[in-house]
Amino acid sequence: MNTSYLKTCMDSVREQEPLVHCVTNYVTVNDCANALLAVGGSPIMSSGEASDVRDIASICDGLDLNIGTLDEVSVGAMRVAATRAGELGHPILLDPVGAGASAMRTSTASVLLDSFPVSVIRGNMSEIQAVAGASSTTHGVDANPDDAVTRDNLADKAAFVRSFSTTCGTIVAVTGAIDLVSDGTRTVAIANGDATMSRITGSGCMLSAITPAFLAAHDDAFEAAVTAVCAMGVAGEVAAGRMGPLDGNGSFRTYLLDALYNLTGDSLLAGAHIDELEV
Amino acid sequence: MNTSYLKTCMDSVREQEPLVHCVTNYVTVNDCANALLAVGGSPIMSSGEASDVRDIASICDGLDLNIGTLDEVSVGAMRVAATRAGELGHPILLDPVGAGASAMRTSTASVLLDSFPVSVIRGNMSEIQAVAGASSTTHGVDANPDDAVTRDNLADKAAFVRSFSTTCGTIVAVTGAIDLVSDGTRTVAIANGDATMSRITGSGCMLSAITPAFLAAHDDAFEAAVTAVCAMGVAGEVAAGRMGPLDGNGSFRTYLLDALYNLTGDSLLAGAHIDELEV
Amino acid sequence: MNTSYLKTCMDSVREQEPLVHCVTNYVTVNDCANALLAVGGSPIMSSGEASDVRDIASICDGLDLNIGTLDEVSVGAMRVAATRAGELGHPILLDPVGAGASAMRTSTASVLLDSFPVSVIRGNMSEIQAVAGASSTTHGVDANPDDAVTRDNLADKAAFVRSFSTTCGTIVAVTGAIDLVSDGTRTVAIANGDATMSRITGSGCMLSAITPAFLAAHDDAFEAAVTAVCAMGVAGEVAAGRMGPLDGNGSFRTYLLDALYNLTGDSLLAGAHIDELEV
Repeated sequence: MNTSYLKTCMDSVREQEPLVHCVTNYVTVNDCANALLAVGGSPIMSSGEASDVRDIASICDGLDLNIGTLDEVSVGAMRVAATRAGELGHPILLDPVGAGASAMRTSTASVLLDSFPVSVIRGNMSEIQAVAGASSTTHGVDANPDDAVTRDNLADKAAFVRSFSTTCGTIVAVTGAIDLVSDGTRTVAIANGDATMSRITGSGCMLSAITPAFLAAHDDAFEAAVTAVCAMGVAGEVAAGRMGPLDGNGSFRTYLLDALYNLTGDSLLAGAHIDELEV
Repeated sequence: MNTSYLKTCMDSVREQEPLVHCVTNYVTVNDCANALLAVGGSPIMSSGEASDVRDIASICDGLDLNIGTLDEVSVGAMRVAATRAGELGHPILLDPVGAGASAMRTSTASVLLDSFPVSVIRGNMSEIQAVAGASSTTHGVDANPDDAVTRDNLADKAAFVRSFSTTCGTIVAVTGAIDLVSDGTRTVAIANGDATMSRITGSGCMLSAITPAFLAAHDDAFEAAVTAVCAMGVAGEVAAGRMGPLDGNGSFRTYLLDALYNLTGDSLLAGAHIDELEV
Repeated sequence: MNTSYLKTCMDSVREQEPLVHCVTNYVTVNDCANALLAVGGSPIMSSGEASDVRDIASICDGLDLNIGTLDEVSVGAMRVAATRAGELGHPILLDPVGAGASAMRTSTASVLLDSFPVSVIRGNMSEIQAVAGASSTTHGVDANPDDAVTRDNLADKAAFVRSFSTTCGTIVAVTGAIDLVSDGTRTVAIANGDATMSRITGSGCMLSAITPAFLAAHDDAFEAAVTAVCAMGVAGEVAAGRMGPLDGNGSFRTYLLDALYNLTGDSLLAGAHIDELEV
């Protein structure tokens, strides 16, 4: 499989500096902003009055919708932002944080997915299964261990991801120990990343925030999504490699942003572990 | 005094990975989430619509109520969450941030304490005195120096804490240079911690966020509260020990999370300085 | 030019520990709080119910208004806080984040500036030009490169800043590669800082948050504003000097807070690069 697009796409993000509008949760919003700056993009947050949301969406290159701390106001802002992004043909990412953990989260994610031209939906397997209407028991904002993608169930999980992508007409990215990305035609498994990423809050949110920058900077949306997932995974490995005996998740968070900051098209290409799957 | 429960309780948090629902302020929410992950728990935030708050409260093991940036919406969310946590018998911690600094904060803290089965109320001495209706002049979100617990006034302050615990039927934890914890029967003074903890925002909020995980993982609530307070204090000492000549409160924040991450039942037991008080 | 006030003012902040009320955005609020603690001040956030906002404003020494994630509720809180701060004669800083990027941001900043006794307005050149009604195309929350202050256009930009200061009766601080501060009579250019400051979110917000502490601690408001701008610039240089080959914007953020924490009146005076301009 030719993965030279990893370098092209990563380098394009740094050259084009896409401006990404984030309507995201208040827990990890600072990390999302710094992650976007680390990869060469630029963040702006607007989630209040419709006029501000619409104006901000208009000057951006991509949109990140994250329901991690949703309420009626922020969901309304997501609708305004997604409407405007759709009008302008800007890429939209949906992160269904906690889908399956509350009825409101599951239904909000489904409605947003159905109502707007979402380019990529990204979540853990429990969340994505919940949005797909499949059986799932989301454990808070983490995936249920029973839902994890393993070498043993890889074929089944990949078939589900490919099928859901076809059904909803959206690229589906499921992240975990093994990541799966499918556009219904192409499906890949990505073996980058480190378990410490689940010991900080926001690894997933950061990936969701940077992905629209990759989508905005590269024509092939599937390749862009794969590049973003790989970038976060390779950065996680670099961060884990810096951990000293006194370090913990405080330092890991810092190292993860540092690794994204120093990631180049070449280092990403060298570090990526991608397998194309026949499903 | 036998403090072997420190080890048992700390190890139980890491084994059981309690899921804690935080309805907390937007200033330190990220640190609260990472602190929970550092001690082995798992955070989830929900403070918007009642249905989401109720669903999230239902799947969690404990609840953190922190009024640091309260408004009508978040206080409403606290009531919904506390009602559900009470129905399910989940432990509830109340952090009356800034009680005494505004009438709304003082009254909200009092009403929450009176209306729900709060397991632990934790604050600085000025805040706790304000909630207790005692004389207090809270200096913003920090304790008034006049209210500080010292070796000289320890007996008086401990008697107040014990008495307030009896009055409100709740474990009272007052943190500062010397921490006091009482359940009305047992009262201890804890001499762990470091002055640098007051030079970052969120030391207190982080302690409040992790405490429900300790309460959920250990049957004796008083022992669990003491263990959480000690854990934060010992972590503060470890963090202070890492400070180099160029380091400041940026690095200290990182080191504090790192220290919580690496804390074990054994290292906690070895580092704790607890005195049982006769009051 | 005598700049000995840099030392006097910086030392006064650490001695007086001013309490600053921040009505600010949810993206960088944690960094704002830690920056205030780093320079020796104390932060408190209140942006919800009017009664809480008014009570908190009453016990503080200065006010930071930042419209980075404005909505009707937070703008209402800004009005309540600014009214109370005005009654008490407390210094007010206005940070018009994103003015020019949305109509609501531009008009809100203008109305706040016109309605309240703002001591200092601080932003990048695109934002300040937007508030002044001058031609500007704000690129998200960053200045448009076309608006940047350079050695070549310094005289013109300084004349604009001086003129706008006279028009609005407020000290104007424009930050960028070269910072300009004017009170209509005195105008200075400050050549401190490092380009990495624009690769983290919040350098500007942090400066806006700490400035009211400097205003509260020093009688001459122009000198206080210059001292705050210099302090952030010198800290940025110190932080950049610590960067190792694996470090990125995660570490830079930490180092910036550390540098503010360790800054003294003497080190600030030694590091400052201020030129008085004849305009």
